[in-house]
Amino acid sequence: MFRKLLTLEEAKKVIHENFKPKPLGVEEIPILEAWNRVLAEDITAKIDIPPFNRSTVDGYAVKAEDAFGAEENKPIKLKVCGAVNVGEPPKIIVKKGTAAEIVTGAPIPEGADAVLMLEHTERKGDELYVYNAVAKNENVMKSGADIRKDETVLKAGHLLGSREIGVLASIGIAKAKVYTIPKVAVLSTGNEVTEPGEKLSPGKIYDINAYSLSAAVSESGGKPVYFGVLPDDMAVLQKTLKSALESADMVITSGGVSIGPKDVLPQTLNSLGKPGVIICGMATKPGKPTTVALIDGKIVFALPGHPTSALLTFHLLVRPIIQRMAGRKMRKPLKVKALAAMRMFPAKGRRTFIMVKLRRDESNRLMAEPVPTGLSGAITTLAKADGFVEINEKQQFIDAGEEVLVQLLKS
Amino acid sequence: MFRKLLTLEEAKKVIHENFKPKPLGVEEIPILEAWNRVLAEDITAKIDIPPFNRSTVDGYAVKAEDAFGAEENKPIKLKVCGAVNVGEPPKIIVKKGTAAEIVTGAPIPEGADAVLMLEHTERKGDELYVYNAVAKNENVMKSGADIRKDETVLKAGHLLGSREIGVLASIGIAKAKVYTIPKVAVLSTGNEVTEPGEKLSPGKIYDINAYSLSAAVSESGGKPVYFGVLPDDMAVLQKTLKSALESADMVITSGGVSIGPKDVLPQTLNSLGKPGVIICGMATKPGKPTTVALIDGKIVFALPGHPTSALLTFHLLVRPIIQRMAGRKMRKPLKVKALAAMRMFPAKGRRTFIMVKLRRDESNRLMAEPVPTGLSGAITTLAKADGFVEINEKQQFIDAGEEVLVQLLKS
Repeated sequence: MFRKLLTLEEAKKVIHENFKPKPLGVEEIPILEAWNRVLAEDITAKIDIPPFNRSTVDGYAVKAEDAFGAEENKPIKLKVCGAVNVGEPPKIIVKKGTAAEIVTGAPIPEGADAVLMLEHTERKGDELYVYNAVAKNENVMKSGADIRKDETVLKAGHLLGSREIGVLASIGIAKAKVYTIPKVAVLSTGNEVTEPGEKLSPGKIYDINAYSLSAAVSESGGKPVYFGVLPDDMAVLQKTLKSALESADMVITSGGVSIGPKDVLPQTLNSLGKPGVIICGMATKPGKPTTVALIDGKIVFALPGHPTSALLTFHLLVRPIIQRMAGRKMRKPLKVKALAAMRMFPAKGRRTFIMVKLRRDESNRLMAEPVPTGLSGAITTLAKADGFVEINEKQQFIDAGEEVLVQLLKS
Repeated sequence: MFRKLLTLEEAKKVIHENFKPKPLGVEEIPILEAWNRVLAEDITAKIDIPPFNRSTVDGYAVKAEDAFGAEENKPIKLKVCGAVNVGEPPKIIVKKGTAAEIVTGAPIPEGADAVLMLEHTERKGDELYVYNAVAKNENVMKSGADIRKDETVLKAGHLLGSREIGVLASIGIAKAKVYTIPKVAVLSTGNEVTEPGEKLSPGKIYDINAYSLSAAVSESGGKPVYFGVLPDDMAVLQKTLKSALESADMVITSGGVSIGPKDVLPQTLNSLGKPGVIICGMATKPGKPTTVALIDGKIVFALPGHPTSALLTFHLLVRPIIQRMAGRKMRKPLKVKALAAMRMFPAKGRRTFIMVKLRRDESNRLMAEPVPTGLSGAITTLAKADGFVEINEKQQFIDAGEEVLVQLLKS
C-alpha cells in the first residue's frame, strides 16, 4: 500500500478538517463530587453575598454619629439596647444613643450604620463607654459587597478546583452542570503481545501500550475503557473495533500499523465505515506509522506499537482532542528552556523528537540530555525522560550548548 | 481562655513533635486502576526485557560473517532457510550460508547474530541477494537490553503516571501495591451556616468551607468525607466529631474558633481525648484562630471560618500532612518570582499572607497585584487570586517594585 507521509502540521490540518472535537454531553452532579470536572454552564448568582449587611467584628452596632468625638480619655456613654446573634434576624432597632451587642457575621440591626470594636468599649451593666469614634459603615460588610445578585461568577469551560467549588457553594448552588467525561476505548494488537499477569510464552512480550495509554487518557481528562489485546486477525479486529466504536466516544489502538505483511489494521478500519483512514503515516520520528481513521463520526487513532512512539504520538495528536471533548480549555503544553547537552540530529526529512532528561550542570545551567534510545522498543527510554526536544526536518542539527525548548511529559 | 499565639514555624514544630504523618495502609489494585496512586513497594523485574533477542527491523536473520564484503554492485548470495514470525519461538536454525526471513519484534533464530534490513536485499525464490554488509548484533535488541532481570525498576513512593504504569505492564505486573488513600472528614460549624441547596433564612449564609476544603483534600491526594454543617452546640459537636474520628483518618473543621463567646470547639476537642488541643492560635494573618488537636493519635485541624483564611491555612499546614499520609513525596509548593505592584504591609507582629493576582505590565514584567480583600469573609478574594505573598512579621513592608515570591494556589 502506498503511503503519503504527511508533515505533523499537515496531519493536524487533516484531522481538523475532518473532525471537530467538542463536549459530548452535560450531566448535573453534586458539587461535592465536582472536583476536577469542567463546568458546562455559566453560573449567575441568584442572591447577594453576603445576603445582608453583616458585622466583621465582635463589638457593638451603633449609629456612627453617636460615637463622634469619643476618645481614650473622653469616652461617650451609650445605652445597651440588646444583642444580635449570628444566624438570626435582629429583633431590635438601634435608636439614637443606644448600642446593640453584636458578634462577627451577625446582621447589622435596623438603625445602626457602624460597629464599634469590642476593645474600644467598656461595659458596665447596661451602660457602654465608648473610647473611639467610628466612621459610617466601618466594620460593616454590605450586602452584595462580595458577589452581586445577577453577577456571573463562573463561566462554562472552567475547571472546578477548590476555589471555584467554594464560589458555587457560597451562592447556594448544591448541584452543577458539568460536561460528561469522554469514554476512550483502548486496545493493543499483535500476535506477540500478552496481557500482564499471564504466563509469557517463548517469543512473546507483555503489553505495555494499552496500560500506558489508558493512564494517559485519564491524565487528559478522559475515561479509558480497556478492550484488551487482539491478534492480527481481520475478523477479530473488525468485531472488537465495531463494539469499541459503539460503546466509546473514541478509539485508540496501538501496533499493527508498520509496513510489515501482517498490518491488517488500516484495511480493517476502512471496512468499518466512512470515510475510513484519513491519515496513513507521518513524516515524524518516532510516529511514522501513525494512522488516523474517521468512522461514522467517531475518530480512531491507530498508534505505532513501540511504547515511546505510541505515547509521544498520543501527546502530539490525541491528548488535545480528548481535552476538547472533555470541554477543557486548551492549555499550551508546558515547555522549559534548556541547553542541548550534545549535538542532536533529525532523521532525514522527518520531524524528529528526541527524548531528553533534564539535569543541572556544574554551573547550574539546565541541560537537556538525550536519553539513549537504544532501540525504539525500549520502555525505559520513556520512563527516564523528562520531556522531548523537537527538531525541524529542515534543520541540519541542534548543536551542543544551543538553547532548546523541552516539552515536558508531565506537569 | 488565654491563647499563646505561635509563629508559623513554632506551629509546624509543635505539629511535627506530636504527630508523624505516614501512609496508613497498603492495598493491591489492578494497574489499569492505578493511575495517580502512590506505589507502596519497590518493583523488581522478574524477567529480562525484552525476554529474548529480538529483531528491530523487517528483513533476514543471518550470520554477520556471511554478509561480509557485500556491496551494492557485488552482492553475496544466501539461501533462504525459512521464516520467523512474531510471537512464536523460531522453528529453524540459521546455518552458514543461509538466511531466515524475519519481521520486527520476532525472536532471532539460533545460529543468527544479525539482521539484514529488507531494503538491503533482493529475493528470487529461495535465493537472497545481499547488497550490504552487516555488523554482528546489528538490528538485534538483546534480551535484557531494556530492563535486566532482578533490576529495581520503580521504588515505593513513586506516583504512578502513564509511563510508570507502562513500565509495570512491560514486566508482566498486572496488580501493584499502592498506599491507601487517607479519609479526611470535613465539617463546618456555625449557627448561621446553611447547606447550599437549602432555603436561606434571614441572617444566615451558605456554607463554603466544607465544599472548598473537600475539594482541597482531593487535590492533596486524600478522600474527603462530608460531615455537614453543625451548630455551635457542644453535645452535637461532641457526637459528630466522635463519629468523624472513628470513621476517618483525620478531621478538618472550620469556624467556631475565633474569640467569640460561642467558640465551643476547643473545649469540645479537649473533651474527646488526649492530649487534646496542641495549638490554639497562630501569629499569622489570616489564620490567627487556627486550632490543632490530637485525639488518641488522630489529628484534627480546626480552621478559621473565613473562606480565604480556611483555605490558606489548609495550604500552609494541612496539605503537607495529607500528602505524607497518602505516601506522596513532598513536593515544594510552586513559587514564581514577580514584582510587587504596590507597597504591602504586614499586620503588626504577625506573619502576613497577601493574596495576589499575577499580571504582566506594559514592559511584560510579571507583577503581583494584591487582591482587594475588602473584608475577610470574601470568597471572591480567593477566587480571583493566583497565589499569595508571605511577609515576615519582622519586616516593615514590601516596597512597590520589590521582587517577591508568589506561592501559587494551583499548579
